[in-house]
Amino acid sequence: MAIGCSILGAGGGGDTAIGLLASLQAVEAFGPVPVVDLDDLPDEALVMPCGGIGAPMIWIEKIDRGDEIVRIIPVVERIRGRPVVALMSAEIGGSNGLSPVVWAARAGLPVVDADGMGRAFPEVPQVTMEVAGISANPAVMTDERGNVVIFEGVDGAWMERMERAMAVEFGGQGYSSEYQMTVEEAKGATARGTVTLAIRIGEAVLGAVHDPVDALVEVLDARTLIAGKVVDVERRITGGFVRGSATIEGLDADAGRELRLEIQNENLVGIDDGAVLAMVPDIITVVDTQTAQAIHTERLRYGQRVTIIAFPCDPIWRTPAGLALAGPRAFGYDLDYVRVEDIDGR
Amino acid sequence: MAIGCSILGAGGGGDTAIGLLASLQAVEAFGPVPVVDLDDLPDEALVMPCGGIGAPMIWIEKIDRGDEIVRIIPVVERIRGRPVVALMSAEIGGSNGLSPVVWAARAGLPVVDADGMGRAFPEVPQVTMEVAGISANPAVMTDERGNVVIFEGVDGAWMERMERAMAVEFGGQGYSSEYQMTVEEAKGATARGTVTLAIRIGEAVLGAVHDPVDALVEVLDARTLIAGKVVDVERRITGGFVRGSATIEGLDADAGRELRLEIQNENLVGIDDGAVLAMVPDIITVVDTQTAQAIHTERLRYGQRVTIIAFPCDPIWRTPAGLALAGPRAFGYDLDYVRVEDIDGR
Repeated sequence: MAIGCSILGAGGGGDTAIGLLASLQAVEAFGPVPVVDLDDLPDEALVMPCGGIGAPMIWIEKIDRGDEIVRIIPVVERIRGRPVVALMSAEIGGSNGLSPVVWAARAGLPVVDADGMGRAFPEVPQVTMEVAGISANPAVMTDERGNVVIFEGVDGAWMERMERAMAVEFGGQGYSSEYQMTVEEAKGATARGTVTLAIRIGEAVLGAVHDPVDALVEVLDARTLIAGKVVDVERRITGGFVRGSATIEGLDADAGRELRLEIQNENLVGIDDGAVLAMVPDIITVVDTQTAQAIHTERLRYGQRVTIIAFPCDPIWRTPAGLALAGPRAFGYDLDYVRVEDIDGR
Repeated sequence: MAIGCSILGAGGGGDTAIGLLASLQAVEAFGPVPVVDLDDLPDEALVMPCGGIGAPMIWIEKIDRGDEIVRIIPVVERIRGRPVVALMSAEIGGSNGLSPVVWAARAGLPVVDADGMGRAFPEVPQVTMEVAGISANPAVMTDERGNVVIFEGVDGAWMERMERAMAVEFGGQGYSSEYQMTVEEAKGATARGTVTLAIRIGEAVLGAVHDPVDALVEVLDARTLIAGKVVDVERRITGGFVRGSATIEGLDADAGRELRLEIQNENLVGIDDGAVLAMVPDIITVVDTQTAQAIHTERLRYGQRVTIIAFPCDPIWRTPAGLALAGPRAFGYDLDYVRVEDIDGR
């Protein structure tokens, strides 16, 4: 699952190493966590999206208690007047995809086979629930000390802004839940099947008899944009975001080609000699050519042998509302969105 | 009342000019606001302390809607499950002493003849309710846009820290309510009679037939520490606080004497040639020698003709718990507290 979450992260969502350790420990201490489909839960009960907010790097030093989101559950139940029957990752990509396992194990709850992105995105309101018109209110946030903050923001942008400020005050990182919804609402407002997809991805990569990248491409029905070597990385951190680009020079079958990857926390656009080969919200992931493990944007280095794959995002992102929230123009690229499978590639 | 709030501010609490304008407008538009004693309210109902949080200077440019705290009332009622029957100033000193009039007029509620300080202090938890063991939770905060944030902090220090961070995010200033309590609790947990005291102070100053400063000293049973001229002001803004000192050279009867005033937002200690004449939590206020109007710490200037008066704080501050929260050592002065009326003065 950790391998799959990394691949689905499109270069973002943070390193899964700590999330994996925390999940293994929680499962060892509290028992395994069932993964359930929304169809198997009571329609009127609540699904609680959850995740970390703040800079993923800080998480490496600022150790969790492990019960942060567990503390939020009764607060959400009290405000909404309904029981929470399952946790859901707000973002399957990266560490946030794994973390609900930690909290679900302690809370004795299942994890829903769905999430709020089907990938990773940088901002709190960039979720399928926002596209579907679910209210972000109340957002409930906490830290390892036990502080609890409930936000009723005028809109998603203010929610993001207030939570981000509180994450800074908490030492750069905190935990939150937004967009709590009934199981019935969740059925049309989430990216479904993404937990089992993450597990299938990991199984394909680890179980590959020959080439792990081929196995990965097959399980995702992905395109390979290029296979080659990282020859340039330009990266700067501005306003809490990693921005920049990476250039990959083709090798072997791709010799003579060059791909430029535009980055804002996640890999957003792949350009070959002026031709866009894939763009956000479709998922572009850089993987190690040997192991097929995802390489996060902050770990890209000169000389790495990589393969860039691209595959379709959840259909909800391809609606007009989805593209308005997370299409190329939402990130400042003056591009009309074309589905990755409709682009004539190499 | 504005004149009295300024005098009770001990040099802090912010300029009352805007609060006065807003109060006059609210009373004109919505009718007069009754001032009620706690003894005349139902014991089980809620008193809601309220005030602004952030930098008072910003208030001059960042105009209120006027209904900020009014929006918080139903939130507090919902959380606490009791009706709010009166508003109370968290801090009678300065602009926060007047502001409840603005909101009470709109909400059709009375203002309680009491407050949470009996003066001004810089931090949210420096209130009589904290001394009396009333919980600060939940703190409810809002801004002019309609964002609402509910804090359940692990302690008063975290409450202060989280609210302060949110005030910054709101543009430097917001509104909040903490330490909501029943009328019965409020009777032993507040500085009582401070609204009518503020009004009496103003009446004495404005109605003085001869010397307004004499009238002020009489109504407060205050001591005059010195009357003279400001000859030195050292002031710097660090960590959101005004820190520094002012030196006043005696004139006429005080010729040859010099008083040094130690300042941290408020006037905290008055020292004459090494002898402490008054100290926090007792109230030290600088007034214009001609008009008896208070001069706030940020308005002290070389050459001003001023009289420094000192008078007793609310008895709750003189308890061990009160002194621990707001005595000289709480502000970093290695002084044993002596009541202003017990110090041999000039």
